[in-house]
Amino acid sequence: MKSYRKELMFNVPARRGFVNITPQVQSALKESGIIEGIVLVNAMHITASVFINDDESGLHQDYEKWLERLAPHEPVSQYLHNRTGEDNGDAHLKRQVMGREVVVAITNGRLDFGTWEQIFYGEFDGRRKKRVLVKIIGE
Amino acid sequence: MKSYRKELMFNVPARRGFVNITPQVQSALKESGIIEGIVLVNAMHITASVFINDDESGLHQDYEKWLERLAPHEPVSQYLHNRTGEDNGDAHLKRQVMGREVVVAITNGRLDFGTWEQIFYGEFDGRRKKRVLVKIIGE
Amino acid sequence: MKSYRKELMFNVPARRGFVNITPQVQSALKESGIIEGIVLVNAMHITASVFINDDESGLHQDYEKWLERLAPHEPVSQYLHNRTGEDNGDAHLKRQVMGREVVVAITNGRLDFGTWEQIFYGEFDGRRKKRVLVKIIGE
Repeated sequence: MKSYRKELMFNVPARRGFVNITPQVQSALKESGIIEGIVLVNAMHITASVFINDDESGLHQDYEKWLERLAPHEPVSQYLHNRTGEDNGDAHLKRQVMGREVVVAITNGRLDFGTWEQIFYGEFDGRRKKRVLVKIIGE
Repeated sequence: MKSYRKELMFNVPARRGFVNITPQVQSALKESGIIEGIVLVNAMHITASVFINDDESGLHQDYEKWLERLAPHEPVSQYLHNRTGEDNGDAHLKRQVMGREVVVAITNGRLDFGTWEQIFYGEFDGRRKKRVLVKIIGE
Repeated sequence: MKSYRKELMFNVPARRGFVNITPQVQSALKESGIIEGIVLVNAMHITASVFINDDESGLHQDYEKWLERLAPHEPVSQYLHNRTGEDNGDAHLKRQVMGREVVVAITNGRLDFGTWEQIFYGEFDGRRKKRVLVKIIGE
């Protein structure tokens, strides 16, 4: 069994945003030399997500609006977590809806994807450097 | 390390529905000959889910009603994504709640499940052919 | 490829609660002798979650309140599932928001975590013995 590890860095300039990270994951896969196996891609922060969906800007705005409805940022006093001095209580909730990680099959050296699948980094408490872990195991 | 790949096909006759796919995953596992490892089961479409829960029809109706409350299909104009000509904006949201994939342990050649665990395909934009990927790695 | 399997047992004294299970997963990893690979940690019950987030009690109260808003326990008659004689319909919904499982990378014999990542067992229908599966594969 071979394994490969790579960290990706992000610094989203707004509080929230979605970044298509499929090309970076494909690069890591190429570097790994792994042909058959799986790749785990996970946020290393607990106010961010990695998820798979469509690269369509209207949809991303729908996600933004919907997540704000499910777990509004304001008023920040509604979250006990914010009594620690943070203002990111909502971000910890939004991240649970969108998920921490994806696991993707590797077949013939490629991400084994359906037509529209793309991997996204979902930021819910940005404006600082944050990391995503890519871990690949296989042969 | 051995690996095995299989696609399952579904054509749910309604817009939404849940299908117990545990028997198909068990068949794939048998075909693979893998005794120890993991199996990844994921929707290859971004308006569908694979998840694990109970095979109880009342619960599935509860899920249907709850997901419609969290992300209603109508009015379709509420989703910017539908400006692309689609009417499945809600399906992309529902799928995030229910998840894209499950990873299940394989022990002694069997799905290493608790008593009530069953794998479901969750369709949120049906009436067409869609695929689920089963990828097994192990020995 | 090596593999290791361990069951963890929980008996949360209330209906709902969160338990930090990171030390138990770390113990299982040590026992496995696996240095590079992945660990799957999943609830074996369908009214419980395993998820990764922050070990902060205010946040856990925020999760409790938020999940009760998204899928209230009362009135129990609102869930068709409860016609089976259960009163845990809400627990099956809450578990979908928080997730069934996590997959964590193993690097140099350790859980490959960001600074604040901790693994939790999320109980939504407690007051009885329930199990979590730890399955480790790698080398």
